[in-house]
Amino acid sequence: MTDFNQTRAQFILPEGKIYLDGNSLGPVPVAAAERLQKMLSDEWGTMLIGGWSQAGWMDMSFDVGNRIAKLIGAAERSIAMGDTLSLKVYQALAAALQLNPGRSVILSDTGNFPSDLYIAQGLVRSLDRGLELRTVPPAEIEQALTDDVAVLMLTEVDYQTGRLHDMAALTDLAHQKGIITVWDLAHSTGAIPVDLGAANADIAIGCTYKYLNGGPGAPAFIYVNPAIVDRIQPTISGWLGHQNPFDFSADYAPGPGIERMRVGTPPVIALNVLNTAMDVFDHVDMADVRRQSIKLSELLIAEVATHCPSLLLISPTDPMTRGSQVSFAHQHGYAIMKALIDRGVIGDFRAPDAIRFGLAPLYISEADVRAAVVILADILDNRLWDRPEYQVRAAIT
Amino acid sequence: MTDFNQTRAQFILPEGKIYLDGNSLGPVPVAAAERLQKMLSDEWGTMLIGGWSQAGWMDMSFDVGNRIAKLIGAAERSIAMGDTLSLKVYQALAAALQLNPGRSVILSDTGNFPSDLYIAQGLVRSLDRGLELRTVPPAEIEQALTDDVAVLMLTEVDYQTGRLHDMAALTDLAHQKGIITVWDLAHSTGAIPVDLGAANADIAIGCTYKYLNGGPGAPAFIYVNPAIVDRIQPTISGWLGHQNPFDFSADYAPGPGIERMRVGTPPVIALNVLNTAMDVFDHVDMADVRRQSIKLSELLIAEVATHCPSLLLISPTDPMTRGSQVSFAHQHGYAIMKALIDRGVIGDFRAPDAIRFGLAPLYISEADVRAAVVILADILDNRLWDRPEYQVRAAIT
Repeated sequence: MTDFNQTRAQFILPEGKIYLDGNSLGPVPVAAAERLQKMLSDEWGTMLIGGWSQAGWMDMSFDVGNRIAKLIGAAERSIAMGDTLSLKVYQALAAALQLNPGRSVILSDTGNFPSDLYIAQGLVRSLDRGLELRTVPPAEIEQALTDDVAVLMLTEVDYQTGRLHDMAALTDLAHQKGIITVWDLAHSTGAIPVDLGAANADIAIGCTYKYLNGGPGAPAFIYVNPAIVDRIQPTISGWLGHQNPFDFSADYAPGPGIERMRVGTPPVIALNVLNTAMDVFDHVDMADVRRQSIKLSELLIAEVATHCPSLLLISPTDPMTRGSQVSFAHQHGYAIMKALIDRGVIGDFRAPDAIRFGLAPLYISEADVRAAVVILADILDNRLWDRPEYQVRAAIT
Repeated sequence: MTDFNQTRAQFILPEGKIYLDGNSLGPVPVAAAERLQKMLSDEWGTMLIGGWSQAGWMDMSFDVGNRIAKLIGAAERSIAMGDTLSLKVYQALAAALQLNPGRSVILSDTGNFPSDLYIAQGLVRSLDRGLELRTVPPAEIEQALTDDVAVLMLTEVDYQTGRLHDMAALTDLAHQKGIITVWDLAHSTGAIPVDLGAANADIAIGCTYKYLNGGPGAPAFIYVNPAIVDRIQPTISGWLGHQNPFDFSADYAPGPGIERMRVGTPPVIALNVLNTAMDVFDHVDMADVRRQSIKLSELLIAEVATHCPSLLLISPTDPMTRGSQVSFAHQHGYAIMKALIDRGVIGDFRAPDAIRFGLAPLYISEADVRAAVVILADILDNRLWDRPEYQVRAAIT
């Protein structure tokens, strides 16, 4: 049984703030500061270049990957860390297209995160061989799984609405049509139980600065099903994906398994922070997280329905088809979120009109949710959002 | 006049070690620890998601880029930071090929860093339209600049021998033949004066963990000549290269100038360390660094010639055609380097037989060089490398 008081104590949470934006950037793990000091003084500062072997820096991307693997039903050494999520989307799509050479369509939905679509657009343009990115509304994915589709690329949890795709069912349907699947787990990893192995998913990618609390710009990850990874000839064939990087041979030869998906020198400092953040999950059961997340989400929805009737719920009402966030629409959504942040309730705004609340049970309690809705109701009741300073548009992040 | 005692004081240098491997990984800047603590407590820990605007995280990749620009003769806001050098090679080559669409050859030399060649191989394979990677010995580059060459991709300073290409002359010759240039500055930036503007170089890339001392896996950089950057349609078109990333529009539109070369969320923690490391250069004149580097290199070569006659110099003898490192060949090079490291002199080994010494004047003195050669001579004179424990091959890093 996960002790959420114990997990909450492992984060720095600023006094007077209720943080409902962990789905953009998780808070600082308490242990991060000490870990970084140790890394600077006892590793980099003492071992210098020797840290790559003596401090285990070189293998860290797989060590951390193995810890993430446990949360998402992935096998040992099936995950490589590094780069950014957008870059991992590129690697994933390039690999998936290679695995399905006779077909030309990348299928996604209109609720996918824009960067995933941008990356697909850039890849389609640069490969210049009649590929097509096809997007349909999320509800129409099933019918769109046709014989010309090479790759189904979806984000499991919609970044705006929190709508949750059925990964196992869609992967199965895709496979029946000979389609390779690429799942973006940005809003899933550490938030909801994921079982890549049971779903027989082909490729998955994700970021680690949201529900894993790895810090701003923390390294991304890529998973490839061990059954197919050896068929991939990496498009971005960097030296750390080489079979023997330190032989410095002139020709690329892919490393065994997932190693081939590494590109360049691992981001050791960031991996150290992330590795520390992963300690929190050592005593966490994702089923407990899911139960508590649903409890918090249902509470938020109920409280808002009672106290903030002008907000329109745009997340699914059925918690089984929703991730760990709840979003509402309001024509003054932007100003409302500015007013909320001013009063210590930190959520997020997503154009054109969505206010978004992430519910991370590791550090958010029912009392937080109730307190947040009291403030939200006050802002709405008294039209506090109507102040001029809240009308000026600028990126809220 | 650069005060090298003052720069040396800004690094943590372990007692009893002479560090001649800053060309693999620079040492820890003293100020890094405090900067990281501040970033954790006053920025991420206090501002949470707000740090992206309030602490300037979002612009940090250009702010740091501007500081690097000053060292390599690049214009303000012509450099974007992020990812790894291998990835930047991919971006650079993809862009360069786009700028020269009618041609099919990527020309490089056999002394280029293997990852640059691997990346070119992967790109050539994936684009699958008759492109060719052609490599010739470094001395034959000039004659190889023929009309079918689209891109000349060279590392300015050879990672093994330290041989230095004449960037200005080769860029000029390349341009006369209608060839786009990609310069890898991994062993140049912070080591020797570079003037991308004067050379009218097209694209350049580099890493920041060597002579810039940004830490293991520190972010890489890419430079694009402002005169041509707007003609590039990025192949890796991530959201942070978008014109308006926070509009979350469905279609990619490249950001202005160099902004389009960003891919994903900036690695803020690593950028903070690098930004601190760049403070050291505020009072450094690269012409002084070059003068001192030549002095140290000439001293090392002279001392080795006198005291270690069995070592064969494989770096150029003329300092004007050499970077900031000196390499020697010896059939027992690997064991010699292991013995040296055991006795506190940290250099590097590069297969098959090269021992390599980086001379970074910011923290290496003439006394260091003399002391290192005394130890090296002792190892050679007494065949200390002949011990069994030094024969076992493993990555030295």
